[in-house]
Amino acid sequence: MSRDGMNYQPLSAATEQVVKPGEFVFAASHFDHGHIYGQISGLTSAGGTLKYVFDADPERYAKVLEQNPGAKAVSDFQEILDDPEVQLLTSAAIPNLRCGIGIQAMDAGKHYLTDKSPFTTLEQLAEAREAVKRTGKKYAVCYSERLLSESGWYAGELIREGAIGRVLQVLNLAPHNLAAAGRPEWFFQKEAYGGILTDIGSHQFEQFLTYGGGQDAKVNFARVDNVGNPEYPELEDFGEASLTLDNGVSCYCRIDWFNPKASRTWGDGRTFVLGTEGYLEIRKYIDVCNGGGGKIFLVNNDVEQMIECNGKVGFPYFGRLILDILNGTDEAMPQEHAFKAAELSMLAQQMGES
Amino acid sequence: MSRDGMNYQPLSAATEQVVKPGEFVFAASHFDHGHIYGQISGLTSAGGTLKYVFDADPERYAKVLEQNPGAKAVSDFQEILDDPEVQLLTSAAIPNLRCGIGIQAMDAGKHYLTDKSPFTTLEQLAEAREAVKRTGKKYAVCYSERLLSESGWYAGELIREGAIGRVLQVLNLAPHNLAAAGRPEWFFQKEAYGGILTDIGSHQFEQFLTYGGGQDAKVNFARVDNVGNPEYPELEDFGEASLTLDNGVSCYCRIDWFNPKASRTWGDGRTFVLGTEGYLEIRKYIDVCNGGGGKIFLVNNDVEQMIECNGKVGFPYFGRLILDILNGTDEAMPQEHAFKAAELSMLAQQMGES
Repeated sequence: MSRDGMNYQPLSAATEQVVKPGEFVFAASHFDHGHIYGQISGLTSAGGTLKYVFDADPERYAKVLEQNPGAKAVSDFQEILDDPEVQLLTSAAIPNLRCGIGIQAMDAGKHYLTDKSPFTTLEQLAEAREAVKRTGKKYAVCYSERLLSESGWYAGELIREGAIGRVLQVLNLAPHNLAAAGRPEWFFQKEAYGGILTDIGSHQFEQFLTYGGGQDAKVNFARVDNVGNPEYPELEDFGEASLTLDNGVSCYCRIDWFNPKASRTWGDGRTFVLGTEGYLEIRKYIDVCNGGGGKIFLVNNDVEQMIECNGKVGFPYFGRLILDILNGTDEAMPQEHAFKAAELSMLAQQMGES
Repeated sequence: MSRDGMNYQPLSAATEQVVKPGEFVFAASHFDHGHIYGQISGLTSAGGTLKYVFDADPERYAKVLEQNPGAKAVSDFQEILDDPEVQLLTSAAIPNLRCGIGIQAMDAGKHYLTDKSPFTTLEQLAEAREAVKRTGKKYAVCYSERLLSESGWYAGELIREGAIGRVLQVLNLAPHNLAAAGRPEWFFQKEAYGGILTDIGSHQFEQFLTYGGGQDAKVNFARVDNVGNPEYPELEDFGEASLTLDNGVSCYCRIDWFNPKASRTWGDGRTFVLGTEGYLEIRKYIDVCNGGGGKIFLVNNDVEQMIECNGKVGFPYFGRLILDILNGTDEAMPQEHAFKAAELSMLAQQMGES
């Protein structure tokens, strides 16, 4: 970021390639959620080389093979685990299977980058913490609502640079299209997806920790409910949670499956961050009645400014993750941060269920 | 409201005069908060006749006398109470004095329209409930963030007409300019203003009940704090509360005194109402980086529409209040609704303090 007179603007134009072809080799498996495509392109655009894909349904990875001519599909997951050249496995399995797949990969000497949510139970989290210790490998989580959102990422940079002073509150509204007809069976099975705060909510909780700058939090209140979809009894279509971070920052999120049909996007996601010297609002996916998303609205003691972020920020996380793996560092997203976001979202889920 | 093809739009152009000059006579006293001017103009533009003003500081009412040549200033408050022609007293006293003044007026046979917050303690509320029973007079409250906001009012009409289906959540962000230098002493005295959720918060809680359609609520969580102004130890500069209405609607508000200096308004107040068939956002006082406020952004299953409200809705509350008084009805804002909003805000305040 730089400040040009009174104006804030992102500087980096495109995602930097941090390695040459072949220097960082990875495999992609379990294409159960479409997030896998963002994870793959995030890694390849940072210079990573995709060597293998694995999924029961070849249609899901056909395009990926086209885009990555050096990659090949394998019919046995074990082939990936057995190849010492593969440094990382990325996958987007059914949520309650993500942890088992990750630990399998780590025990085979691979780092792991999973779609969020990384877990559906606190027991899985405990096993993953243990696996990190045992193997020395990373259990990284692609919290895409920030890592694959240029405005979401840049908001973090603005906050870190002090553009709104000391942060007082992070508030997140996260509506989603239900689009029930196109959803797989597991989407409606509580055991598989883990609950609305555990599943989608892990995004929001990760943003709480990042923007709010906390290491831990107390869950003050949480609610999970089915308020409008009785035909799917295990679906939670509404969730909310209030937290206070260990540094005093207030956090609140609402998550729902009620994005209306006339919306031009899958969800008018908003993030509001209030600081002592200003506030910012992120309109991530749409600027309602005013065009597309990827915008930050910043008001502080000097400026009232709209900052267009799409195409200007890139996705720095993936290059940093690759460098962390190559250098043995923990900078892209500290392991404990990734785990803590999931832990808090599951604690909130438990409170909401009780 | 009418629906013109696919578009929603307010129909009423200006506030209707519901009475002829002299048919509804009122007095205005205790100009401690500038809200008094909105209360007076609300009543006069609905046809009310201002007969008296009373305040220790003549500068505060000089302009009101110019605008209302038939009105006269009195130096003794008792003169107002003794005049049987006066049907209502409106005032904006220091908050902890509002109830005593109201009961005095009611016992003298006047209805009462006070600035919010109507009370600073639950004991005052109990006394006012008793006074309503004893005198048969109204203890009305000008919750101006809805009653004097055209977009705030019209949002209620849209919701009542079903534009967003069944309401699931009402969420309110209410930042305010501190502007400490220009504030009177009582502003910083907790006993006088009652706490941030009691004082400002009563606006938000009134909107919860109106938009959410509930009669009562459970306070799930509340926080009041001084997070950035240690030089004013009795000031609460941050407040938040989570409620669930008795019909299941979720409510959340954040209130603060951190509106930044470069803001073009005293506070970028927002209200989000989520329904089963759509959502709306009210940008009341500013549309950040995009001009003025008074706008509703509505997205449902048919439209994505921005609705300009200023100058098109008027302030129907005041005429309805006058008619209620003349006809012995309780339509403008049921007495119990006005009291319940204050009660819930004070219960949240207590929870925040504990």
